[in-house]
Amino acid sequence: MHVLILGAAGMIGRRLTAELVAAGRVGNDPLTGLTLVDVVPPERPRGFDGAVRVEAADLSRPGAAAAALTERPGIVFHLAAVVSGEAEADMDLGYRVNLDGTRLLFEAIRTLSESEGYRPRVVFTSSLAVFGQPLPPVIGDDFIPAPASSYGVQKAMGELLLADYSRRGFLDGIGLRLPTICVRPGKPNKAASGFFSGILREPLAGLPAVLPVPDTVRHWFASPGAATGFLLHAAGLDLSDLGTRRTLTMPGISVTVAEEIEALRRAAGESAVALIRREPNPVIMRIIETWPEAFDTRAANALGFVADASFDAILARHIAESQRS
Amino acid sequence: MHVLILGAAGMIGRRLTAELVAAGRVGNDPLTGLTLVDVVPPERPRGFDGAVRVEAADLSRPGAAAAALTERPGIVFHLAAVVSGEAEADMDLGYRVNLDGTRLLFEAIRTLSESEGYRPRVVFTSSLAVFGQPLPPVIGDDFIPAPASSYGVQKAMGELLLADYSRRGFLDGIGLRLPTICVRPGKPNKAASGFFSGILREPLAGLPAVLPVPDTVRHWFASPGAATGFLLHAAGLDLSDLGTRRTLTMPGISVTVAEEIEALRRAAGESAVALIRREPNPVIMRIIETWPEAFDTRAANALGFVADASFDAILARHIAESQRS
Repeated sequence: MHVLILGAAGMIGRRLTAELVAAGRVGNDPLTGLTLVDVVPPERPRGFDGAVRVEAADLSRPGAAAAALTERPGIVFHLAAVVSGEAEADMDLGYRVNLDGTRLLFEAIRTLSESEGYRPRVVFTSSLAVFGQPLPPVIGDDFIPAPASSYGVQKAMGELLLADYSRRGFLDGIGLRLPTICVRPGKPNKAASGFFSGILREPLAGLPAVLPVPDTVRHWFASPGAATGFLLHAAGLDLSDLGTRRTLTMPGISVTVAEEIEALRRAAGESAVALIRREPNPVIMRIIETWPEAFDTRAANALGFVADASFDAILARHIAESQRS
Repeated sequence: MHVLILGAAGMIGRRLTAELVAAGRVGNDPLTGLTLVDVVPPERPRGFDGAVRVEAADLSRPGAAAAALTERPGIVFHLAAVVSGEAEADMDLGYRVNLDGTRLLFEAIRTLSESEGYRPRVVFTSSLAVFGQPLPPVIGDDFIPAPASSYGVQKAMGELLLADYSRRGFLDGIGLRLPTICVRPGKPNKAASGFFSGILREPLAGLPAVLPVPDTVRHWFASPGAATGFLLHAAGLDLSDLGTRRTLTMPGISVTVAEEIEALRRAAGESAVALIRREPNPVIMRIIETWPEAFDTRAANALGFVADASFDAILARHIAESQRS
């Protein structure tokens, strides 16, 4: 099975590539080749004997999607996107990449489907940003996507296209709304959600961290390993019973900031917790308080998607992985 | 107030034009001018002293939307669409007109908004076709749009764009998901829903009609007058409390085919009912049984949208209007 990863240079794309290569297979098939595409050239994976093509390309340019499909990948992971803040700041860029890029990809697949019967599995990453206020405390699979950002609108439109192109038989698509990734590896960033990981990652590395919101804030999390696990699980599923609801909210762990801090205390003691400085930030608070707190993900559960076991398990996994790298 | 109607030659567009001209006003403002656009040239309204421009144009062509906005209409009724069956049979045409045409319109408004602060009220007609199986018996305002047709997907994408362009302040939009129109005037057509009107309209004119589904089929209806009433009401509303949920399912009457026939019996007697011939059609039945039966429209109710009083009232209105025309 040849696999295409669009957005292969991102945090999830890099981890997904490494896990595919380590497993040597995808679903029930041996991994025979990889096409890795991103706007910056993705790294060539080490220790893989199959065919690898690495390409820097912008999917919203004419012909880019067709070129990415040269090897007729049986599985397409479509992770490529302009992130939320950027899509809000540059409306044209967000619509061009997140909407037009996705539509051009699906149209390129349709062209091959009509000419030669090509019909790949497409795994599309959507986002909790499709949901907007007012929200119930627990959001079910039937709840209306009503985004409060252009990024959320573009992802919701991608979900609709994925369902229509699947219904018409051009591709066999599944969309995954990933929980907020925690603990996100790497350096602190400017994202409004950054502190959810920062208050764990920085103290664990002996560094100070800022907490801009009250301890009572609750949110929905998955580890990086759970997120790539969802993508790999989605690649091998039988989707024939999904009907037109092709995008599923992924299971996660709903915890408060206070519970995050208690997990940190259990894992690394009082001295780590003491590195968190409370610095209330009304701007971040106003953004965060519109976000979802918890989901009832029974459609995903029924398909065998499984959340991290606990927030302690999320933290333990992060500690083990930081020590390895 | 200058008013633009896109899709002015259609059944709803013609009626809306006539009602605007008859009222001489829209919301709290006098009607000063009309721009009427459709792919076929709309009729010039009689008895109106204001400025009228009539144009045949395809909104999905470059420049067509900007030309339609020449008079900077304070209200834009966007009714233009390729209908469901056509959008399903010709995928490219449906996406070009229903998605790209809508997006080009909103982009043309955005251009004027950024250059000169233009910000019209946009009243967009969406459809119950945004909803797909599985459906609850009564569908609330929070229920997920998961369309089972390309037309439904295109309308749901239009709803999302309307919300995003409204949130960003380029336009002040409201979308209306209209109930199935009954009694639809004119000749029988090939639409799967045609019989809902046909079993009333034809017998009332002394003509036979075919009923292809069981009497137990239940659906959601509004009279043509209620539908144009919703559009006119939407034109004058204060929408500042709507948030990102800019599209509302309109109130209707939920009745079964049996209840339709009882209303016909009360209005026109046994001889009219005897003109209905039962001819079960499994193809039509399979389509109809995926359709919604009833809605809880409290968001629309709270904004003062009011359904027809009863199915008898729908029928009485049709009879009165047919005698006038």
